Amino acid sequence: MRSMKKIIHPLIALPAFALSPLAFAQASPDVAWDITEGLTTEVGHRQAGTEAEARGRDWAIAKLKALGFKNVRIENYVMPTWVRGDERARLMTPVPQKLAITALGNSGATPPGGLQGTLAVFPSLEAFIAAPDAAVRGKIVYIGHAMKPAQDGSSYGYFGGVRRQGPNLAAKKGAAAIIIRSIGTDSHRNPHTGNTNWETGVAPIPAGAISNPDADLIERLAARSTKPMYLDLLLTPRFVGEQQSGNVIAEIPGTDPAAGLVIAACHLDSWDLATGAIDDASGCGIVADGALRAAAAGPLRRTIRLLWAGSEEVGAFGAKAYWDAHKGEPHALAAESDFGADRVWRLDVKLPTGAEALKGRLASALAPLGIAASNEVAGGGVDIQPIVKSGVAVIDLQQDGTRYFDLHHTPDDTLDKIDRAQLRQNAESWGIMLRLVANAPEDLLSGQRAQ
Amino acid sequence: MRSMKKIIHPLIALPAFALSPLAFAQASPDVAWDITEGLTTEVGHRQAGTEAEARGRDWAIAKLKALGFKNVRIENYVMPTWVRGDERARLMTPVPQKLAITALGNSGATPPGGLQGTLAVFPSLEAFIAAPDAAVRGKIVYIGHAMKPAQDGSSYGYFGGVRRQGPNLAAKKGAAAIIIRSIGTDSHRNPHTGNTNWETGVAPIPAGAISNPDADLIERLAARSTKPMYLDLLLTPRFVGEQQSGNVIAEIPGTDPAAGLVIAACHLDSWDLATGAIDDASGCGIVADGALRAAAAGPLRRTIRLLWAGSEEVGAFGAKAYWDAHKGEPHALAAESDFGADRVWRLDVKLPTGAEALKGRLASALAPLGIAASNEVAGGGVDIQPIVKSGVAVIDLQQDGTRYFDLHHTPDDTLDKIDRAQLRQNAESWGIMLRLVANAPEDLLSGQRAQ
Repeated sequence: MRSMKKIIHPLIALPAFALSPLAFAQASPDVAWDITEGLTTEVGHRQAGTEAEARGRDWAIAKLKALGFKNVRIENYVMPTWVRGDERARLMTPVPQKLAITALGNSGATPPGGLQGTLAVFPSLEAFIAAPDAAVRGKIVYIGHAMKPAQDGSSYGYFGGVRRQGPNLAAKKGAAAIIIRSIGTDSHRNPHTGNTNWETGVAPIPAGAISNPDADLIERLAARSTKPMYLDLLLTPRFVGEQQSGNVIAEIPGTDPAAGLVIAACHLDSWDLATGAIDDASGCGIVADGALRAAAAGPLRRTIRLLWAGSEEVGAFGAKAYWDAHKGEPHALAAESDFGADRVWRLDVKLPTGAEALKGRLASALAPLGIAASNEVAGGGVDIQPIVKSGVAVIDLQQDGTRYFDLHHTPDDTLDKIDRAQLRQNAESWGIMLRLVANAPEDLLSGQRAQ
Repeated sequence: MRSMKKIIHPLIALPAFALSPLAFAQASPDVAWDITEGLTTEVGHRQAGTEAEARGRDWAIAKLKALGFKNVRIENYVMPTWVRGDERARLMTPVPQKLAITALGNSGATPPGGLQGTLAVFPSLEAFIAAPDAAVRGKIVYIGHAMKPAQDGSSYGYFGGVRRQGPNLAAKKGAAAIIIRSIGTDSHRNPHTGNTNWETGVAPIPAGAISNPDADLIERLAARSTKPMYLDLLLTPRFVGEQQSGNVIAEIPGTDPAAGLVIAACHLDSWDLATGAIDDASGCGIVADGALRAAAAGPLRRTIRLLWAGSEEVGAFGAKAYWDAHKGEPHALAAESDFGADRVWRLDVKLPTGAEALKGRLASALAPLGIAASNEVAGGGVDIQPIVKSGVAVIDLQQDGTRYFDLHHTPDDTLDKIDRAQLRQNAESWGIMLRLVANAPEDLLSGQRAQ
């Protein structure tokens, strides 16, 4: 559990309307919803490196121009691309049962006719790591975990190692393939995909995630300890080499270019199993909506630059390409929305020395939305990591992630899961934050300069 | 809305322990859970006419014998069998989007390479029926509906016509194929299967159900009215002729054979997409558990006969086979559990003249479980329809079906959906009901005799 000590700021007691320059923005069009609805309906999935992501970029350019953003453009790059094939898993003994499975990103492939093997069942990554190679060699490994919903999403970091490290470790121990309990908190027959990675020199093995109800079944059968479990597995993904991807950039120009850019980021790509509504069409909707709300109250000192990054899911190639191209420009602050569409509940900041007062103004303005300032140091998301690492100031508007991992990377990440009231609160909080940051009189560039 | 006037019976004010002969049964093993867990884990799906249903019967025989039931046996019959093939649906224009689809039972097949056609979108069965044949001919029909959860499940009867009548009407209007919004109340990417039927002389066309989020997508795109929607559909089910199915029978013999049998029914078969936890492993668990609870308090006057019917989902062939074989025997009363595993909330009866007092005793004994007697006339479920139609008395222990149609006939009908506390209340109510009915001093045979 991370610390949640609350900052009590003297301004927090003032009435909200005295502080917020954006009270009227509640009447603005529902941009966050429109973007989420549009991307999921008119584009669909947007897997990085595919024609679907390219259609997403084209859609984004047209939409952002129509919304009045300036300097709207695509910045292309290429990145190694992996695509899903056929997927099937069937338990053959002790009882024939179909399992709902999907390949993890970067999974190796089985032979075209599938692969059969005995299951070696481990309830946790720790138990698997402790097992001798002889218990694993030539087998299909199953690894479980005990992930539970958490408002701050912290369970993902802890249990996600099963997906991030499990396949590579299984390959090194000589396993023929690996299936994991989905890194997710739901109980539906929808497996959760997501990237895994291989150390240099480790040949990828077939690696899939089964749905939580199917993982329950495997564990119930393993507990009976009757006959060995024998699995038939088919996963035929392919690496298709370097493909084109790209970032979409759009700006609301400020009056003082020397004051530095304010980056509002999300990612445009999604996994291929669904339409990427909460991951991350809604994030792109939120940052665009927030930027328009910020600008609606009058001119801004700093330019707000939207970064709708490509290729987040598969290795953050967009984030790298952005920073490679733009690190010479002054960056005042970065923030990212990539944790669904539910309400913002906490403000974390990392501000340069001399800009401490901005935190108090943010806390006061956000408090009426039910958002509390914390003492946590903001860390930003994947798409702004290179920016954050360079020392640029960062703000996290932390979202309620209690149900995020019910849907994350599943076929179930569709528009119907969006709660419009929470999405609106989220966009409002971004509007307030971006306006205060863009117009802050403080020097926000000292962090970047210090590096 | 059906009438829910409450019967206030004088006995209802007495304390529960004074009425229930089964207070001690709370300490008995959790038979309903054990059966539900066992069937879903050790057998899996049990589609009628397949080897899986046969394994289910073998499992049932062993389990019911182990539980101490007598005259445990399989009664075989044959029935026409349909099996699922490959399934795929892709919207090609105005935007490529994959749809989660499954074939309806008795669906015709597309060519092996699939079938392409323009979608004709109708929001309801009424709108489809009103459309001229010219609007449908050669097209792939989509029919939507507005089903909502209801505690008594009444929405299924009303909106289920889309599945039951839609395909046959579409074939008669000259449609090439039909997809429907799943007859279900959830919002997951899991389509709901279920039987459809064709009039004599009507050639089956491919007929599938898409998940509710996918149906939402179709309707959003249709509302944009931009370009025509073009669909690529693959459904390759097959009719495999007459196959063996069977009913499983088990009894707790009573002391007075002339007083007639008490039938406690469920169905052992399930759809093939999941393990049939709520439909209807739990029902079989409930009636077996209830019978054991009824017997635990001492000898029973009437024989309780379990009927774990085969082939319910695909046309109630088990129900017909049972009655063909047993209609010559005296049947005092029939009841069925086939509406999930949630709590019983209402008692409906249909009792012969002279046996009215039994209703009062049942109401009094069931009230402490939160069950209210109604003035509805009990109608029984599909597996006891031939018995009910013959005039035999019937009791419905109505279950809470609010979430039943979230799961019904989907890949999501798995053990994790069972609420053990509600399942136990349900089995307790069956124990109370079966003991009171089996030991009732009234003549319960007059209904059957009158036919």
